[in-house]
Amino acid sequence: MSAPIFSLVQAALAGQRRAVARLLSLVENADARERDDARAALAQVYPHTGQAQMLGVTGAPGSGKSTLVAQIAAEYRRRGRTVGIVAVDPTSPFSGGALLGDRIRMQALSGDAGVFIRSMASRGSLGGLARNTSNVVKALDACGYQRLIIETVGVGQTETDIARTAHTTLVIQVPGMGDEIQTLKAGILEIADLLVVNKADHLGADHTVAALRAMLELSPRAAGWQPPILPTVATTGQGVAEVVDATERHVAYLRQSGQWERQARARAADELEALLREELWRRHLAQVGETRYAALIEQVATRQLDPYTAAEEILHT
Amino acid sequence: MSAPIFSLVQAALAGQRRAVARLLSLVENADARERDDARAALAQVYPHTGQAQMLGVTGAPGSGKSTLVAQIAAEYRRRGRTVGIVAVDPTSPFSGGALLGDRIRMQALSGDAGVFIRSMASRGSLGGLARNTSNVVKALDACGYQRLIIETVGVGQTETDIARTAHTTLVIQVPGMGDEIQTLKAGILEIADLLVVNKADHLGADHTVAALRAMLELSPRAAGWQPPILPTVATTGQGVAEVVDATERHVAYLRQSGQWERQARARAADELEALLREELWRRHLAQVGETRYAALIEQVATRQLDPYTAAEEILHT
Repeated sequence: MSAPIFSLVQAALAGQRRAVARLLSLVENADARERDDARAALAQVYPHTGQAQMLGVTGAPGSGKSTLVAQIAAEYRRRGRTVGIVAVDPTSPFSGGALLGDRIRMQALSGDAGVFIRSMASRGSLGGLARNTSNVVKALDACGYQRLIIETVGVGQTETDIARTAHTTLVIQVPGMGDEIQTLKAGILEIADLLVVNKADHLGADHTVAALRAMLELSPRAAGWQPPILPTVATTGQGVAEVVDATERHVAYLRQSGQWERQARARAADELEALLREELWRRHLAQVGETRYAALIEQVATRQLDPYTAAEEILHT
Repeated sequence: MSAPIFSLVQAALAGQRRAVARLLSLVENADARERDDARAALAQVYPHTGQAQMLGVTGAPGSGKSTLVAQIAAEYRRRGRTVGIVAVDPTSPFSGGALLGDRIRMQALSGDAGVFIRSMASRGSLGGLARNTSNVVKALDACGYQRLIIETVGVGQTETDIARTAHTTLVIQVPGMGDEIQTLKAGILEIADLLVVNKADHLGADHTVAALRAMLELSPRAAGWQPPILPTVATTGQGVAEVVDATERHVAYLRQSGQWERQARARAADELEALLREELWRRHLAQVGETRYAALIEQVATRQLDPYTAAEEILHT
């Protein structure tokens, strides 16, 4: 490893804010040119990870997600915890995607030395985005941020993947969004550890709570954690302390039930597998050679060869 | 290859409906127990593919997507084409997810021998879903269905992937869904070859058309295909012939510009790569052995070893 990278990581682990920022930029681009440096940094960072509690927050645009994230962060701060926020949502004010009013609301947080906010570039491959988010989260964890909040839009597979990197997944609903309930049905309900009905002062909030409760009763979970339904008014902070209480309760449940350990093992396995798959592919391509590979693709594209036979051939030489 | 599989594929290629249905079930489970049979069938099917025009149709729940798909299919039939419909949308009546009224509307199609409807199980890994959908599409293509319509909900990366397997991607918008426009901005606009404003008889349709037009003008494409904005009323069939005209125009453009060829090559390359990656991983795991792999995961999970060093170690032995 190059000496500057080693020193950079040391400075970041010691809590120097600028070094943290540079470290995050480095590991966020682990797929790009700085790949070797990024991997060296991540290897150095890794032993220091595993301390933070990670909360994934997901909800549709307009659900008040960013305001709720800011309120949860403020509540964590009041309880003496340092906080990292990773915004993967292109509509989030943390990512620079929202209205001026929202941004001003966020500035209270960004002036606090106990808070580190990072937005992820959402362009490019979404698979890459999930990987890079996980790297940024690891770096913040190692740098000592005790509570990490990962904000995503929460519709697609990537968001689900990102949510799964968190210990606790919070799904936001708001009154009067019929279609969203359908979306929930289709899968997001299964990933929710906490269900928050934000804008609980709006018309129809009781109905939304009741609908969610009915849905939970229709698809009961095996014994264990039952997701609470928590009403909030993020703009005023109402219900936010209860949400933070619930995140702490959920983490206590994870530890006590052994799920914390199982999740850690599953994450390690996923990460090792992804690294190995990538490396196996790189080596294979280098071994086969671009010319021969291009010729095979041409034969498959023109239907002279089917892909299954082509794969067999290439692997047996 | 087993003789029964060979005969099954022959019968399906000859157009026997029951054989087609069995072939689709086989290739839809290419990852599961019948893997070898499924691959043998796909290898046999492959030389007959590449004939169909594939249309991906994507839109939010409630956008009238399935009704539009049914109308497009009927229009193709009027023009003398056979049609395959693959529904990947859990809310689609084709997938059994919708209201009785919708289902009845679909029955006219399902009684037609020139139409084959297949719904994909949307449970399980979404990566697997994309692969299985591509297999089902290939089988329908080989069995002689001339126009294939692939219906997805169109929010996440998987839907985008699935849309990319089609020659033409149609994105549905409806009046008065402000949030949807945001979603569009975030990426779906980039994949649309045709933009349809359905429910064009509803209030605000003109506004939606104008907003889409403005967005297209703000993000102009390089010279080439400019996505048309097509108003429809799927329930009455209004505008559907124009949509079908546009799909044919788009395919003519793809052929003329050389993009048809480039897409075919990219699809072949993607498929070969996916097969090789999977096989490399299988072989690697078999070589390393489960016991040793589990021990490494344990070391990574407990932070005794970072995943990068673990990957290096495992690859150098």
